[in-house]
Amino acid sequence: MPERVIRGRFTHALDELNQGVLTLGSMVDKAIAKAMQALHERDLDLAREVIENDQAINRRRFDLENLALDVLAMQQPMAKDLRFIMATQIIAIELERMGDYARGIAEVTVRMGYGPPSQSVGDLVRMAELARAMLSDALDAFAQRDAKLARALPARDDAVDALNDRIYQTQVDLMIHDPAMVNCATWLLWITHNIERLADRVTNIAERVVFMVTGELVEMDVSTF
Amino acid sequence: MPERVIRGRFTHALDELNQGVLTLGSMVDKAIAKAMQALHERDLDLAREVIENDQAINRRRFDLENLALDVLAMQQPMAKDLRFIMATQIIAIELERMGDYARGIAEVTVRMGYGPPSQSVGDLVRMAELARAMLSDALDAFAQRDAKLARALPARDDAVDALNDRIYQTQVDLMIHDPAMVNCATWLLWITHNIERLADRVTNIAERVVFMVTGELVEMDVSTF
Repeated sequence: MPERVIRGRFTHALDELNQGVLTLGSMVDKAIAKAMQALHERDLDLAREVIENDQAINRRRFDLENLALDVLAMQQPMAKDLRFIMATQIIAIELERMGDYARGIAEVTVRMGYGPPSQSVGDLVRMAELARAMLSDALDAFAQRDAKLARALPARDDAVDALNDRIYQTQVDLMIHDPAMVNCATWLLWITHNIERLADRVTNIAERVVFMVTGELVEMDVSTF
Repeated sequence: MPERVIRGRFTHALDELNQGVLTLGSMVDKAIAKAMQALHERDLDLAREVIENDQAINRRRFDLENLALDVLAMQQPMAKDLRFIMATQIIAIELERMGDYARGIAEVTVRMGYGPPSQSVGDLVRMAELARAMLSDALDAFAQRDAKLARALPARDDAVDALNDRIYQTQVDLMIHDPAMVNCATWLLWITHNIERLADRVTNIAERVVFMVTGELVEMDVSTF
């Protein structure tokens, strides 16, 4: 096959990887939005839909992985292309795990059923909105190869952490003053944790975009609990 | 450079990647063991050591990533080598995150300080032992290219989940009956969650080993909350 044709297929495959990451990101964003809506409105059918759709997110990630292996086998990529291909894989993993958190939120919603609504649900919804705005900018940073935008993302995790702390304190106080709320409050804390992890994952994606664009590996600070 | 010399350097680099994953695995295993010892003995200095050492785990993962990029740039690898190189990266990420969980356990231990010991600590230590035994076998499966051993791992997560459920119930009961225990019990539940995630990560590593050896992508079932 002429070199020109191989190069053309290679470029086409890189475009496909690029588009694949953005599509996966959009699927995950929808999953988070639906999981939060299901929680807010106690819409258990919607929650079940999120749980089922997680399979589609997983499949999409596997497709991206196979595509990356094909691309790598196609020709010997240059340093920048290699970083891009590796980045698509790692970002795809992060996105897939974000999908798992959305599923986790939906699973807890189903388990809670129609139990007492909690005073922290508004904060939880806001927290998820912040995480989704971060995700949207992280995907833009990826699409535009914008290291500056990516570098600015971890600082925004502080607002997520502040809401996290407030919800945590509210729920702990609730449990201390009303033992009947312990089960429900514990569920809410799991959901809080899942949303907090969503934002951490976005930070990982941002870190990866910086590396992809600049070749510089930095670990942005990520909390673990 | 003669083809033979390039091939030799390539093979050497693959060996280095292989050894790098095993070394990282051993560092993470030590971090988990120390974090659990710190929790069990309320040894806050040891907990702080785990927190500090997490940086070394992160650096090691970055080194592995750079090595993989070098290897990929060196020559056009065959399908099996590509799967191996990709596997080392993904396993390295999983291991690094396991290191983050160990750090998380140590951070909670420091926050709890010398507060009341909990009746679940024994179960937590057992749970971590199970996760470490799984990690040890996952690393063996990687080192020996043993898909059968890797496939057997997810089933062992059930025992971890059973302990998880028992600890969860114990701590929730404790909170319901003694509001003074809410803070401590909530901390313990975070630690439980971190250990449960450790076992999930091992399942991810096992999944990756199966793919590396067989070329077959399977998602083993992983709980998210």
